[in-house]
Amino acid sequence: MANVNRRLLLATRPSGMVDGATILMSDGPVPEPADGEALVRVRYLSIDPTIRTWMDDAPGYLPPIGIGEVIRGAGIGEVVASNSTNHSVGDLVFGMLGWQDFAIAGGGEPGLQVIPAGVEPTLALNLFGVNGMTAYFGLLDVGAMAEGDTVVVSGAAGATGSAVGQIARLSGAAKVVGLAGTDEKCRWIVDELGFDEAINYKSEPVAQRLHAACPRGIDLYFDNVGGEILDTCLAQIALRGRVVLCGAISTYNTEGKVAGPGNYRALIARRGRMEGFIILDYLSRFPEAQAAMFGWLAEGKLRQAEHIVHGLESAPDALNLLFTGGNTGKVIVAL
Amino acid sequence: MANVNRRLLLATRPSGMVDGATILMSDGPVPEPADGEALVRVRYLSIDPTIRTWMDDAPGYLPPIGIGEVIRGAGIGEVVASNSTNHSVGDLVFGMLGWQDFAIAGGGEPGLQVIPAGVEPTLALNLFGVNGMTAYFGLLDVGAMAEGDTVVVSGAAGATGSAVGQIARLSGAAKVVGLAGTDEKCRWIVDELGFDEAINYKSEPVAQRLHAACPRGIDLYFDNVGGEILDTCLAQIALRGRVVLCGAISTYNTEGKVAGPGNYRALIARRGRMEGFIILDYLSRFPEAQAAMFGWLAEGKLRQAEHIVHGLESAPDALNLLFTGGNTGKVIVAL
Repeated sequence: MANVNRRLLLATRPSGMVDGATILMSDGPVPEPADGEALVRVRYLSIDPTIRTWMDDAPGYLPPIGIGEVIRGAGIGEVVASNSTNHSVGDLVFGMLGWQDFAIAGGGEPGLQVIPAGVEPTLALNLFGVNGMTAYFGLLDVGAMAEGDTVVVSGAAGATGSAVGQIARLSGAAKVVGLAGTDEKCRWIVDELGFDEAINYKSEPVAQRLHAACPRGIDLYFDNVGGEILDTCLAQIALRGRVVLCGAISTYNTEGKVAGPGNYRALIARRGRMEGFIILDYLSRFPEAQAAMFGWLAEGKLRQAEHIVHGLESAPDALNLLFTGGNTGKVIVAL
Repeated sequence: MANVNRRLLLATRPSGMVDGATILMSDGPVPEPADGEALVRVRYLSIDPTIRTWMDDAPGYLPPIGIGEVIRGAGIGEVVASNSTNHSVGDLVFGMLGWQDFAIAGGGEPGLQVIPAGVEPTLALNLFGVNGMTAYFGLLDVGAMAEGDTVVVSGAAGATGSAVGQIARLSGAAKVVGLAGTDEKCRWIVDELGFDEAINYKSEPVAQRLHAACPRGIDLYFDNVGGEILDTCLAQIALRGRVVLCGAISTYNTEGKVAGPGNYRALIARRGRMEGFIILDYLSRFPEAQAAMFGWLAEGKLRQAEHIVHGLESAPDALNLLFTGGNTGKVIVAL
């Protein structure tokens, strides 16, 4: 076993994208698991936009990452030593392992989930993990999607957005429209994932295209991006339409005051609703969604895409991919 | 009976406040009720911010008022001639009578409601009318107010806002905070209506004062104004907080693009919800709310205030009062 634990620490709070000054690598000793603890070797890191928000010194649903602390992030690891009855050597576990080679499990933090044998680790990070759960509960529970709904999703070629569109399709949406930033991504979500239509928000007139694609208005808009696209979708919301606020990736690198959606007023006339959620609130219901996912996967009706990047040292660049749109599907760092 | 029907017609679409060019008086003959119709002499007009929105050529929950058409508005009138089995001469009726001396009832438009004997006409326009119903269902149904909630309402000295605060107080709110635009209004809502605190948004630092008044955050914000105040309240929304979108009076005279609430992102981290509604959807449930109002009024626990203006010709200026904040309580034009 390696006798060095490489750790990526927050050195300075970024302004805009993460750069060379934001995160520094630091070598330390491999930690010793105490009684009731286990040592986990990190194998995969889940790269999520929310990690960028934790680097700001701003209130959020979790406290900011402290300067000098390991970058917080979910991952999958393998138990390599255990003084705990909860974990056996060889177990694959999921949890907030952080951007480092080794983590300690069982130290009072929210527990690690053991991944059942037969589930691919990258699947556990994606459709069975935070992204799939976010898509499932955001769409069906927060958004209360009903059969016959016209559903629009932004960030549609991303890990969450691509799952949202597929689940909407499988749940009886009348129409599923995805917004993505390249023609290639647009083709992928239509040809491979079964979206009805795709709009390249960088090259096409979004309002016009949405209007043509959703002539009766948007019943459910699943928002991963915020900004102009949110505002445009609000203007076209249908009677009793719902906006599910999942993320606002277009604003996470913005300094100072973020522009708001002036068209929120459409929610009054159309009796609409805009609601945010955090997937951690649904932890106890994950099995329900995972069962549905498993069924769809087994029938070949659900697909995932991964964008794998290699090496712990690549994690900062991997995070930036989410903001430049350089990924299709789930970004994962393999260690 | 007068043999002239004075009518206020939309002459040009206003930019900003209504002025002398917006609305013109036109004399016409008193209409003759056909079979199944009744002739109604207008006695009181309800002056509501939403009337201003109908003057714009923009989609809304009702079509815009056409150029040359009578200004749309609710009012109370007396049946003065009837060829209808639904209406008897002498009945007081409530409905969309419009800004004119006489209206025809029973011509296929949504029917007029007969006001029960013993109910003051101005009460029917206010607490028993659109404002009281809006306050009641907006707060308790859309906002799902629960006992122990911290409730904030803007436009708190207006017809709807003053009812919201009182109903919240009577329904077990932990704290009721109102925003109004003069010290006099602030004193009135605290001393006379029982609000716990009032903030003069024109002279006080709203964010700071709200923070001090609502240290655990705002559970329910009832928004009558939009703009900066909405944004400030969003930033202080509590976990699972709700924003009830009733109106956006600060924006109704704005030309072009309206600034949106950048702090909508707080809805994500705090699992919050922002929802609009139109009181017309609750018509069938009005009796339920009216019974509650009646009980509170009978016990002396609920108060209303009226700002009465005299003469049909004063209606345009009466509408402007809502935007200059020149009124306390419900603005009514008595003909």
